[in-house]
Amino acid sequence: MTEVFSLEPTADNVAYTFGGHAPRLRVPAGSIVQVDTEDCFGGRIRTTEDLPSQVCDLAHLNPVTGPIHVEGAEPGDTLAVHFAEIRPRRDWAVSSTFPHFGALTSTGTTAMLHDALEERVWVYDVDTTRGVCRYQARRSDFSVELPLDPFHGTVGVAPAAGERTMSITPAAHGGNMDTPELRSGTTVYLPVNEPGALLAIGDGHCRQGEGEVCGTAVEAAMSTTIVVDVIKGSPLSWPRLQDDTFIMSTGSTKPLEDAFRVSQRDMVLWVCELTGLDLLDALQLVSQAGLAPAGNVVDTNYTMVAKMPTQLLGGGAAVFDGVHARLADVARQHLAHR
Amino acid sequence: MTEVFSLEPTADNVAYTFGGHAPRLRVPAGSIVQVDTEDCFGGRIRTTEDLPSQVCDLAHLNPVTGPIHVEGAEPGDTLAVHFAEIRPRRDWAVSSTFPHFGALTSTGTTAMLHDALEERVWVYDVDTTRGVCRYQARRSDFSVELPLDPFHGTVGVAPAAGERTMSITPAAHGGNMDTPELRSGTTVYLPVNEPGALLAIGDGHCRQGEGEVCGTAVEAAMSTTIVVDVIKGSPLSWPRLQDDTFIMSTGSTKPLEDAFRVSQRDMVLWVCELTGLDLLDALQLVSQAGLAPAGNVVDTNYTMVAKMPTQLLGGGAAVFDGVHARLADVARQHLAHR
Amino acid sequence: MTEVFSLEPTADNVAYTFGGHAPRLRVPAGSIVQVDTEDCFGGRIRTTEDLPSQVCDLAHLNPVTGPIHVEGAEPGDTLAVHFAEIRPRRDWAVSSTFPHFGALTSTGTTAMLHDALEERVWVYDVDTTRGVCRYQARRSDFSVELPLDPFHGTVGVAPAAGERTMSITPAAHGGNMDTPELRSGTTVYLPVNEPGALLAIGDGHCRQGEGEVCGTAVEAAMSTTIVVDVIKGSPLSWPRLQDDTFIMSTGSTKPLEDAFRVSQRDMVLWVCELTGLDLLDALQLVSQAGLAPAGNVVDTNYTMVAKMPTQLLGGGAAVFDGVHARLADVARQHLAHR
Amino acid sequence: MTEVFSLEPTADNVAYTFGGHAPRLRVPAGSIVQVDTEDCFGGRIRTTEDLPSQVCDLAHLNPVTGPIHVEGAEPGDTLAVHFAEIRPRRDWAVSSTFPHFGALTSTGTTAMLHDALEERVWVYDVDTTRGVCRYQARRSDFSVELPLDPFHGTVGVAPAAGERTMSITPAAHGGNMDTPELRSGTTVYLPVNEPGALLAIGDGHCRQGEGEVCGTAVEAAMSTTIVVDVIKGSPLSWPRLQDDTFIMSTGSTKPLEDAFRVSQRDMVLWVCELTGLDLLDALQLVSQAGLAPAGNVVDTNYTMVAKMPTQLLGGGAAVFDGVHARLADVARQHLAHR
Repeated sequence: MTEVFSLEPTADNVAYTFGGHAPRLRVPAGSIVQVDTEDCFGGRIRTTEDLPSQVCDLAHLNPVTGPIHVEGAEPGDTLAVHFAEIRPRRDWAVSSTFPHFGALTSTGTTAMLHDALEERVWVYDVDTTRGVCRYQARRSDFSVELPLDPFHGTVGVAPAAGERTMSITPAAHGGNMDTPELRSGTTVYLPVNEPGALLAIGDGHCRQGEGEVCGTAVEAAMSTTIVVDVIKGSPLSWPRLQDDTFIMSTGSTKPLEDAFRVSQRDMVLWVCELTGLDLLDALQLVSQAGLAPAGNVVDTNYTMVAKMPTQLLGGGAAVFDGVHARLADVARQHLAHR
Repeated sequence: MTEVFSLEPTADNVAYTFGGHAPRLRVPAGSIVQVDTEDCFGGRIRTTEDLPSQVCDLAHLNPVTGPIHVEGAEPGDTLAVHFAEIRPRRDWAVSSTFPHFGALTSTGTTAMLHDALEERVWVYDVDTTRGVCRYQARRSDFSVELPLDPFHGTVGVAPAAGERTMSITPAAHGGNMDTPELRSGTTVYLPVNEPGALLAIGDGHCRQGEGEVCGTAVEAAMSTTIVVDVIKGSPLSWPRLQDDTFIMSTGSTKPLEDAFRVSQRDMVLWVCELTGLDLLDALQLVSQAGLAPAGNVVDTNYTMVAKMPTQLLGGGAAVFDGVHARLADVARQHLAHR
Repeated sequence: MTEVFSLEPTADNVAYTFGGHAPRLRVPAGSIVQVDTEDCFGGRIRTTEDLPSQVCDLAHLNPVTGPIHVEGAEPGDTLAVHFAEIRPRRDWAVSSTFPHFGALTSTGTTAMLHDALEERVWVYDVDTTRGVCRYQARRSDFSVELPLDPFHGTVGVAPAAGERTMSITPAAHGGNMDTPELRSGTTVYLPVNEPGALLAIGDGHCRQGEGEVCGTAVEAAMSTTIVVDVIKGSPLSWPRLQDDTFIMSTGSTKPLEDAFRVSQRDMVLWVCELTGLDLLDALQLVSQAGLAPAGNVVDTNYTMVAKMPTQLLGGGAAVFDGVHARLADVARQHLAHR
Repeated sequence: MTEVFSLEPTADNVAYTFGGHAPRLRVPAGSIVQVDTEDCFGGRIRTTEDLPSQVCDLAHLNPVTGPIHVEGAEPGDTLAVHFAEIRPRRDWAVSSTFPHFGALTSTGTTAMLHDALEERVWVYDVDTTRGVCRYQARRSDFSVELPLDPFHGTVGVAPAAGERTMSITPAAHGGNMDTPELRSGTTVYLPVNEPGALLAIGDGHCRQGEGEVCGTAVEAAMSTTIVVDVIKGSPLSWPRLQDDTFIMSTGSTKPLEDAFRVSQRDMVLWVCELTGLDLLDALQLVSQAGLAPAGNVVDTNYTMVAKMPTQLLGGGAAVFDGVHARLADVARQHLAHR
C-alpha cells in the first residue's frame, strides 16, 4: 500500500512565495500526500463585514501549503501532481472585490485615474453533500445555487534562475494559474528547477468562472489529496495538464494574446511529440480541434489554456508513458480504501 | 406559412466589405432566408497545390452573401438572426496557412523580421451523412476524423458612422468574429446602424478550434437557412448571441485582454438587465459562473466570448422577450416541412 | 511660379471619414495648397461651459478638410505632403477630457465598470506673435505658458480595399496619428490607394505632449499651407515622415508594442533601402541610433514613431530622390514671396 | 570631504538577481561610491566569433555589481542614486542579436513557430577622448560613428514582498529598465523595500536607441561614480528620475500601453504633488507638455518613460527638497578634485 503523507496549513507550513523556503515535508516519488490548505485570505474573511483591505495583511495573501520536497526530482525533470480529491473544509466560502484588482477595474498596472470600485464581500453556503454552493446577492434577494467544482488556483514549484516569486503570480513554474481545469481528476506537469521540485499548493476555489473576472473565486480552505511522481529527463517550458479526456498546455504572461500564443505553441509542439506530425501539420490539427478557455485575466500574469482531446492523438496512454492513468489509479484505490 | 426568400452567392450578390453596398434582397422582419455562401477563398482552393497567395485575388477574400435589407430595421434597433441550418455544399473543404497571417507567425501588425512560415493547404473530405470531416496530414500518413460542427465565421451588418469595413474584420457591427458559437441553433443579435440593417453572411466553417490558431478553419461553401427578426428600440454596443443553454456577449478588439474586457463588461450589464442585480452583484455572479472561450486570435481584431447559462438567470425566455425561442420554433417548423 | 490652390472648411468641404467622398478640389502634383481646417470639435467648444458630450454631435467629430484629388497619383504610388506652414486661426484654443476616452480612463474597449472621469474643458490663450499658448488650471490659479508647436493630428488618404474609415482612426492610410512630428517643416509620405490619393487634413493642435494622454491636444482651427507631390511606383505599407534631421516610420495599431513593432520594422527596411545594409545590420544600427516616441495612446489605434537621424544614413538627399528638400524649397519661396 | 567607497565586479561582488543577497558593501547615506561593472555578457563576447548562446552561461547573464547597503534606508523610504560619471572601461564594446530575444523576433512569450533569426555579433571601437563609438556593418563596408552616451541599463534595489528577481527584469524595484535616460547627470529614485535598500548596478551601455529593438545595446564594462542618499518617509510606487531639465516617471510591465499608463499616471500624481493642481488639471498639463519615449520593448517587462520639463512646474528645486541639485553638486566637486 502506498504510504500516505500529510501536511497541515499551520503558520510554519505555509509560504507566500514560490522559492526561498526549506522543505516542510519530504516524500518519495509515487507518494500520496494529504495537503490541507487555507483560503487565499488566510481565513480572515468570514462575514460580509470583513473587508479584505482591512482585515488582511497584504504581505500575507494567498498562503500556499508547502514546499514539499519530492525525492529524486532534479532540475530538468518533470513533476507530475495528480489531484485525487479536493474537498472544501468548511460549510461556507467567500468571494470579494478588492480595490484596484480585477479585470474590469483600473489596477496598479492598467493604471488609471479612477477611484477604486466598491469593496464588497459575498459569503457562499457550501453543501458538499448536494454538491452546490449558494450565491446570494448583496443588494437584492436574488439567490441561486451553483454546482461545486473545487480546484486549486495555485500549484507550483520553485522557479528557475534562483528567483523567488509571490504566490499570486502565475508563470513558467506554475503558481497562481487560476484555471478551473486544476480540479480533481487532473494531473498537472511542472518543470523541476530545484532539487526536490519544492511543490506547494493553495488558493482553493469551490468554483470559478473562466477569467476570474472580479479577481477572486469562491474561496475556500480545502482538504486535498494528491499523488506525486517524477518523470525523469523530460524538461518542460510551461506547465501542462491532463485529465481523462484532454491534454492541456498553459501560458501565463501578458498581454493575453501572448499567453494564448505560449499555450498554443506548446500544444503544437506536444502534438508533434505524440503523433510524429511535423510542425505545420500539428498546427493545422490543433487549429481545428483545440479549445482555448481563459484561465485568469486578473493576476500579475494572465493565463490561457490550450486543450486537445487525447482521443484524436492516439489516446492519452502515450502521454508521459501513461503516468496520468497510473496516478489516477493510485488515487482511486486510495479513496476507495480509506 | 412564413415566406422563404433566398440569395445565391453570385458575383452580383457578394461583397467584400460591410457597408457601402445597395441591398441585394429585401425581406420583411420574421422571414426565413436561404442564404448560400462561397468559402473564404472564393472557392479557388481545391487541391493542395492551390496556394492562396497564388490563386486568390487578395482584394477579394472572404466574400459575404448580401447585404440583405430587413424591413423595419432602423438605427437603434437590434437585428436578430437565427441560424436554422448550416450545411456544407460540397464533399470537401480546405484549410491553409497563409504568409504572415495567424497567431503563431509574425504578421503585418505583430511585425517581425522573420520570413513567412511555409504556405500549406489541407483538403478535408466532408461526410455530412456521418457528420464528420477527415483531417489528413500533408507530411505523414496520420489521419483522423473530426466531428462536423458547421458555423459561419462572418455575420454582420453595415457599421456605424458611415464606415465601410473589410469582411475579414470583426468589430461592433459583427463581421469576422470566427467563434464556433455561431452554429445552427444560435441566434445572433446585431446592432442596427443603417436602415434595413444590411445583413451579410459568409466564411462557412465545417469546424474550427477556439482561436483559429493557424488563421483558417475547415473552410467550406455553405447552404444556410436563417430566420431574421427586428427588435425595436433596443440598441446594442456589441454583438450578442443566444442558444438554448447560454447567453453570450462578444468583444472584438486588440489587445486580447481588451476583447475579454468588452465581452465581460457587456455580459455583466446584460445580467443586470435580466436579473435586476446591481453592477457588482452581477459581476460576482458572472465571475463565478461564466465561461470565456477565445473566438479568434488571428484577425484584424481578436474576438473573445463571454457565456452565461440562462438557467441561472431565470431562463432564456426573458431575453429580448423570448425572440430566440420564437425564431428557433419557426426554424424547426420550416425544416420539418420542407 | 507654382499655382496656389485653396480649400476652406465649409460644410461642403469637410468629411468625417477617409474614403467614400468625391474630391472637393483637384490639383496637379507639385501644387501649393492653402488648406484651412476647423478644430476637432467643429469649433463648438468656446468656453469652459461647453462640454463636448453636450454641444458636439458625436457623428461629426474631427472634421477633415478634403478630400483633395492630386492628379497623377495612382494606387501603388506614394503621396508626399510637405507642411509649409501651420498657423492657428484664432487667439484661443481648447482642450478637454471626454467621457470614457483617454489613456488613463476606462474606455469603450478597455472596458471597465467605472463611471466616467469628470468632463472638463480648458481654454488656452494663443499668442502667435510670441509663439506661446497659456495653460490655465481650472481648479486653482496655476498658470503657465507653453511654446506653440502647431501640427495636424490628422492627415491621410482614402484607405485600401474600398474601406471607409472614421477620421478619428489612425491606420495604414494615415488618419488620426496624433504625433507632434506632423509639424511644419515635415514631409509626410502616404500610400496611394485610390486614384488621386484623396488627401484630407484636420485636427490642428497648437501643441501636444507625446501620447496625448487625456485624449485631446490644444485643439485649434488652422490656416495651413502644404505642398503636394507624387512619387511614382514606390508603394508604402505605412506612413513615413521626414524633416530636415530625421526620417520617421509610423505604426498605428494595438497593442502598443505592435505599433512599436510596425514602426521599427518599417524603419529597418527603410534603412536597408537607403544604405544597402542587410536586414540584421540595419536592425543593429536602428537599435543603437533610433528614437521611439509615442504618438497617441488614446485613439482607436495607437501610434508609435521610429526616428533615425538622416546624417547617419548618408544624408536625407537620397530619400525618395530628395523630394523633401525640393518641397521644402518650394515652401520657403512661397512663404517668402506672398 | 565626502568619503569615497568603491566596489569591483569580482565574482564575489556581482549578483544575477535583485534580492536574496547579503550586502557586499555598506555605505552611509550621502556617500560617493565608485562602482565598476562588467558588461551584460560577463565580458565573454570579445570578437564577432563569440556567439552569446555558445560562450555565455545563460544562468549568469547581466551581472550587477552589488548589492550595496545604504545605511539608514528603511522600507518606505526612497533611495536617491545620482550618476556622477559613467565611463567605458575598454576601447571596445559589443552588441548582438540573441536567439528568440528582441522586439522584432518571436520570443519565449511572443511565442511563434519561426526559427530564430541569425545570431550575429557586432564589435564597436570606443573612443572616449573623441566621445564616439564606431558601428561597422558585418555584411558590407558601411561604417559610421555614433556619439557616446553612456548609461546603465540596470539599476535597482531588493524587490518588495520577499521576491528575488532576475537582473534582466525591470519592475517596481527598478532593474533592467534599459532607458538611455539613466545617463550621468541623472538622479534615479528607487523605493526602499529592504533595510539598506540593497542597491546594485550593471548593464553599462555606450549608447542605445529607444526601445533597444534588437535586444542589446552597445554593451560595455563601465567605471561608474554614483552619489547615494536616502529620502526618509516618502514611499514610491515606481522608479522616478530627474536630470537638470526633466522629471521622469517610469512604468515597467506588459503590454506596452500598461507601461505607458503606469508612467503617465505616476507623472500626473507627481505633478499634483509639486504644483498643488488637482488630478484633472495635472492630467491636462502633462497631456500637453510631456514626452513619452520608449525605454525597452524587449525585456521580460517593457519600460516606458514619462518626462515633464521642471521649468513648467516651478523648477526642479522643489523635487524631493532639492536632493538632485545637492547630489549633482557633490558629484561635480568630487570629479573636479580627484
